[in-house]
Amino acid sequence: MDRKYVIGVDIGGQTSKLGVVDTRGNVLAQSVIRSDTHDDVNLYVKDLAAAIRKLTDQVEGMAAIRGVGMGVPNGNYYRGTIEFAPNLKWKGVVPLAQLVSDELGLPVALTNDANAAAVGEMTYGVARGMKDFIMITLGTGVGSGIVIGGNVVYGHDGFAGELGHTVQVRNNGRLCGCGRNGCLEAYASAVGVARTAREILETTDRGTILREIPWEKISSKDVAEAAQQGDSVAIDIFNFTGNMLGAALADFVAFSSPEAIILFGGLTKAGDLIKTPVVESLNNNLLDLWKGKIKVEFSQLKESDAAILGASALAWEL
Amino acid sequence: MDRKYVIGVDIGGQTSKLGVVDTRGNVLAQSVIRSDTHDDVNLYVKDLAAAIRKLTDQVEGMAAIRGVGMGVPNGNYYRGTIEFAPNLKWKGVVPLAQLVSDELGLPVALTNDANAAAVGEMTYGVARGMKDFIMITLGTGVGSGIVIGGNVVYGHDGFAGELGHTVQVRNNGRLCGCGRNGCLEAYASAVGVARTAREILETTDRGTILREIPWEKISSKDVAEAAQQGDSVAIDIFNFTGNMLGAALADFVAFSSPEAIILFGGLTKAGDLIKTPVVESLNNNLLDLWKGKIKVEFSQLKESDAAILGASALAWEL
Repeated sequence: MDRKYVIGVDIGGQTSKLGVVDTRGNVLAQSVIRSDTHDDVNLYVKDLAAAIRKLTDQVEGMAAIRGVGMGVPNGNYYRGTIEFAPNLKWKGVVPLAQLVSDELGLPVALTNDANAAAVGEMTYGVARGMKDFIMITLGTGVGSGIVIGGNVVYGHDGFAGELGHTVQVRNNGRLCGCGRNGCLEAYASAVGVARTAREILETTDRGTILREIPWEKISSKDVAEAAQQGDSVAIDIFNFTGNMLGAALADFVAFSSPEAIILFGGLTKAGDLIKTPVVESLNNNLLDLWKGKIKVEFSQLKESDAAILGASALAWEL
Repeated sequence: MDRKYVIGVDIGGQTSKLGVVDTRGNVLAQSVIRSDTHDDVNLYVKDLAAAIRKLTDQVEGMAAIRGVGMGVPNGNYYRGTIEFAPNLKWKGVVPLAQLVSDELGLPVALTNDANAAAVGEMTYGVARGMKDFIMITLGTGVGSGIVIGGNVVYGHDGFAGELGHTVQVRNNGRLCGCGRNGCLEAYASAVGVARTAREILETTDRGTILREIPWEKISSKDVAEAAQQGDSVAIDIFNFTGNMLGAALADFVAFSSPEAIILFGGLTKAGDLIKTPVVESLNNNLLDLWKGKIKVEFSQLKESDAAILGASALAWEL
């Protein structure tokens, strides 16, 4: 039988999403299993394999599946491992690709979720036909997937593309989850936007509808909603975030001169509130030769399917 | 006849160096022509072709030449052009590779000098066998050649690898030759080291033998010599330079996770004066996963031959 579908698996701290995907990026069937209830990874793999088999009953069975692609935290593409992932139960180095492959009798590839998103965008999304682009994921953290000459950059050890941990504020920068200070992620993530909001509320007496929300509960979504209502503090927060992100992107362009930068993840729901200052700051900070020439695009993958699509795209390359 | 040699041409603002090179990186014959006396690039190309023909008389003639590699300011590898080079007489976009190829009847490739240095290091130098490394050239400016998966990164337009123009000081940064402020090049170049020296002399009254040199004539070489004699101001200047360069390199590692960073050019003559603070700062600034794991090496190409070797290495790939 023609192996015309792939499986995409996106492993998060609480749940794993899985789906069957065709070459056009249609998710034909999907389901979810827990990823936080198995202390032993082998038991998780058995659950995952069972869920995959069950899912394929909705298409043409396992015989129609070409391979499995997985997006996982701290995933190492070269070794097919999860390595020291702080938010997963399985500690140390876990040879997940091999375990899943042995269980299913199919080839398996894995990488981190931002790299998977980049492959997904190249396979099904706005980056189709592009050879050189950078995907920036603006979620709880800031991740990146870098494509050069049509290939994801994995680096000598499989861990390249940590652009969320480039240092943007060298003096008195915010503490980042990585233990260092001033990382892009501490500012340009959803968490970073909320931190910026709290800093402004705490250090100024500017009037804003954000003060109606309990201080510790302010989210980037609240800031976006306030900005959409014309709240000037909320608009300033997005301008601040976009300015910093745009300046960072200008340095990334100096590295690999991509055709486009593709923004993905929760913060992009703010639309032009974030895109306009990013594009302006990018062009203000670029070398003359690139001014006005680097595209900035939002991902075109359907939000609910994006994680599965990104992961699945890896499997077409197997 | 076996085409067993290549020609390397390094074009600078004043002179062009050219040489015949064998597969092991021996420069068998070399010469120099002016690059600043021809307003018409076609006349320059005729001079260059004549010099190349003459040079090959010293080996086995033009029939033994496989191709020509050229390192040129603002060189575009994809198009074989020089584009808007501020320090050359030929303005606009010059299709140099085609002109030289037509004149000699040989394949010609060109790129900028830092990319050429990276290819040279990979072909003949300390990066032999490496697939992922970053070459940083510390000369009058700061250039870079990035190799990922064994290929130089040219980007979507041929201009990737401008790491000297990543912004390291976002507030009150030094004016850079590119017209922006705070670029790495304004600090970590030979010119940058001299600027740091002048700043310290001007803003402090610290005692240093550098005060014996006319203020406007202080060079990075003077600073290195003073440091080698134990002058504490001069040593501080190298520590400052190395700290900033190391922090910048940590961000570059977050991008492409190279096996090694290779330092090349005039400033490397300072040896451990520059290398020690660079390595320390790099490791202080890296994410934990890379601490102590990224090699920092000096180029092993013979200084006098390096420009020709770098350029020539391009020709083996033709």
